Amino acid sequence: MSNAPAAKASNYKSAIQPTRAENFPEWYQAVVKEADLAESSAVRGCYVIKPYGYGMWENIQRELDARIKECDVQNAYFPLLIPVEYLSKEAEHVDGFAKECAVVTHHRLEKGPDGKLIPASPLEHPYVIRPTSETIIGETIKNWIQSYRDLPCKLNQWCNVMRWEMRPRVFLRTAEFLWQEGHNCLETADGSREDALLMLSVYKDLMENCLALPVMEGEKTADERFPGAIATYTLELMMQDGKALQGCTSHDLGQTFSKSCDIKFQGRDGKEQHAWTTSWGLTTRTIGAILMAHGDDDGAIMPPVVATYQVAIIPFLKDDAGKDALLGYCNKVKTALKAKGIRVSLDASDVRASNKTWDAIKKGIPLRVEIGEKEMAEGNVTHIRRDLGKDSKQTVSVDEFVNNAERLLQDIHKSMFEKAKAFRDSHIFDVKTVDEVRDFFKADKAGFVRADVSILEDKALEAVRKEFAITPRCIPFSDSGKKVLLGKSY
Amino acid sequence: MSNAPAAKASNYKSAIQPTRAENFPEWYQAVVKEADLAESSAVRGCYVIKPYGYGMWENIQRELDARIKECDVQNAYFPLLIPVEYLSKEAEHVDGFAKECAVVTHHRLEKGPDGKLIPASPLEHPYVIRPTSETIIGETIKNWIQSYRDLPCKLNQWCNVMRWEMRPRVFLRTAEFLWQEGHNCLETADGSREDALLMLSVYKDLMENCLALPVMEGEKTADERFPGAIATYTLELMMQDGKALQGCTSHDLGQTFSKSCDIKFQGRDGKEQHAWTTSWGLTTRTIGAILMAHGDDDGAIMPPVVATYQVAIIPFLKDDAGKDALLGYCNKVKTALKAKGIRVSLDASDVRASNKTWDAIKKGIPLRVEIGEKEMAEGNVTHIRRDLGKDSKQTVSVDEFVNNAERLLQDIHKSMFEKAKAFRDSHIFDVKTVDEVRDFFKADKAGFVRADVSILEDKALEAVRKEFAITPRCIPFSDSGKKVLLGKSY
Repeated sequence: MSNAPAAKASNYKSAIQPTRAENFPEWYQAVVKEADLAESSAVRGCYVIKPYGYGMWENIQRELDARIKECDVQNAYFPLLIPVEYLSKEAEHVDGFAKECAVVTHHRLEKGPDGKLIPASPLEHPYVIRPTSETIIGETIKNWIQSYRDLPCKLNQWCNVMRWEMRPRVFLRTAEFLWQEGHNCLETADGSREDALLMLSVYKDLMENCLALPVMEGEKTADERFPGAIATYTLELMMQDGKALQGCTSHDLGQTFSKSCDIKFQGRDGKEQHAWTTSWGLTTRTIGAILMAHGDDDGAIMPPVVATYQVAIIPFLKDDAGKDALLGYCNKVKTALKAKGIRVSLDASDVRASNKTWDAIKKGIPLRVEIGEKEMAEGNVTHIRRDLGKDSKQTVSVDEFVNNAERLLQDIHKSMFEKAKAFRDSHIFDVKTVDEVRDFFKADKAGFVRADVSILEDKALEAVRKEFAITPRCIPFSDSGKKVLLGKSY
Repeated sequence: MSNAPAAKASNYKSAIQPTRAENFPEWYQAVVKEADLAESSAVRGCYVIKPYGYGMWENIQRELDARIKECDVQNAYFPLLIPVEYLSKEAEHVDGFAKECAVVTHHRLEKGPDGKLIPASPLEHPYVIRPTSETIIGETIKNWIQSYRDLPCKLNQWCNVMRWEMRPRVFLRTAEFLWQEGHNCLETADGSREDALLMLSVYKDLMENCLALPVMEGEKTADERFPGAIATYTLELMMQDGKALQGCTSHDLGQTFSKSCDIKFQGRDGKEQHAWTTSWGLTTRTIGAILMAHGDDDGAIMPPVVATYQVAIIPFLKDDAGKDALLGYCNKVKTALKAKGIRVSLDASDVRASNKTWDAIKKGIPLRVEIGEKEMAEGNVTHIRRDLGKDSKQTVSVDEFVNNAERLLQDIHKSMFEKAKAFRDSHIFDVKTVDEVRDFFKADKAGFVRADVSILEDKALEAVRKEFAITPRCIPFSDSGKKVLLGKSY
């Protein structure tokens, strides 16, 4: 369904070129640009997150942070730089990250012979910019933990990390990204497994109830685990091209890092033992997931709970004479909505109303409110849902709209979730054999295949995985560990 | 006045050793440790901000962020790394920061001949970790601004920055620190001066009304300006040893960066011109200022508005039999306070009540609530103000306390502010000549001297500045630019 303003309906062309069907990756790049979310920078693989994109990250942070704190996790902050020798201590971990580390080797610049600035004052021991912080947090908290009374020790930090990505892609895979990384330390093996699952459930709550994203909860296969983990739990999301996006992960690290960092405590039995740890993270790639799961050919469609603006008010000015009165009326509506805790944009500039409308559509602001002379004269507003487009247009009194706006936003959330879920459910296909897996991806079908977990032991699968660049996305909890989902992924 | 619990009064020794009078710098380090705010790390000059310290930063962020947004500033995020050639473009700027830059030169680690990890894959163009972001933000927003209609463009980011400090000191001067950096772009010279002053007034509001810190507002002298600024405005704070701490700065950058980055726009007169910019920042050193302005010989005293916890509930258990009932009663009080929006800690562990009490004192939690069998039997609580100590002890009903807690916290804020202000006011001394400046600092007196601004032109001042390591702190607005404050500083 097109969301185009009525005036353009006759010769309507989608606001985003190309469309999703024409070229999904290019459609994605165009949405990021047209919705003014982010742009590339002079730093390889690093992007500028623009205010409209960052606003969404702030809202995601607020929602997730509150949920994390409900689990008795405390926020803290650990150094950006990690001594190289810390990385070396855990073999799998270093293999996983050494290939993509930004390395700090000098702590000064000086003018070279040609007048250009060059690195000076080499460091005796180089540092890497954290790709993740298990090692430095482990080396720190080992001094905080002596006895079982000091456990659980649950820490989280909101920060930037860096992994030198060779094929960067805005939000999805960037050299620097923003995330939270949680690091919990527990008393027993059961404790760390349950903790990793608890934090996964926090993410599920966020995804479903704030981002309108249906999730597939499950465990990663051994070859897809985080370097050093004994189990990696994941929420897999399906994008509209049928590819998977890993929404977040929660790792049961067992005693891997407690042994490499020597995190020991005196147990209830009086004996000294190594702790059990977890780590769990969610990144700015979530914004990319929202775009690719919900967007349409007119641009982004933002889930109301985390949308930078939930309502866009568009004044339809007829002439300059009526301007002050109309803007005054619009501001009254804005103030009334803000008093209800709703985030509102009101563009009072001289830009044409149709341009403002298209801007709001492309940005995916959940509710658009159009106010012209007629609405003002009658004490009304006209509102349109971004997800349903112009067929949802309604004119109601200001009071009715203000009182109903929160409910409307909840309805939008619910519709978006149901739509994404229906898409997902209709794009998972049961297969029995490796040949059927091959046939599915050879036909270039969109979606995941679901097979008996024993298929992973079939030697023929390897060639099919390579040929079509597919991976086991997870062993879903819903099938009691008996099935595996396979698909292409971001 | 000692805040020692009554039981210890007879043989009372301050909780922090040494005392402020004995050795102020060591007292400061001890407070940071005893209040569990931060600790050093394996990374030179970088500190771990522990949960109790980070909680305060979160509260400062929340208060300041809301005020910044009220000024129509939008949050965004720019890359951590800055191309070295960006720094080179502005001569003063590079002179100011080149000496203390962490330089990224490689993007991979590999195993060396001895099996140790060494930097690999050198970068063609090295990057520095941002010491501040004027250059990369300027190079980005020049593409966002075409016309006066695009102005003002007001951006802020909350992030980490790095300056390779040779003499690091926790919170006050650290290689990595957390801050917000605002970067506004205006249409006129008046616009950027007014904007820099507006943002300074936002900081003043935060300092006085959230941190209970009286400020001296003023302009930096030319030699103390930010590299590239045409005016630097500052809020100078006085610590209890009489030294100054620069609380924050707001810079009128004039056209320095708009020229080096080429930020141009078409003005209302149709002519192309360079924009006028400001930058303004406040860092985690604010936490150090709070400690040194308010703390006493028993530890920190936290201003209620940003205190990690505003109330500490201490259960005084007599025996295990009564434990559940007493903790239930304490939890009821906690729940009632939380419902009022008050941040409460309740330590239900088996640690002795006197240890919990000392912990709350050293951490500087504004209100301590002691609950024993007697209080529970009578439906009461006993509360003590951290700033006034045991003389403020009162036993009142739970309802009365809960209803009055917010007012009590406001009273504490007011007392703390007044006390710091009285100290500050009594430690500023008017002098007329350079000899009087010398005499003051030679006598090792605590505080600032205030002189006619013409003293800066007296050639004899230079030697005195060097001998006693004093600097002009600011030309205060309050004296209409006719006076200058001189002092030692952090």
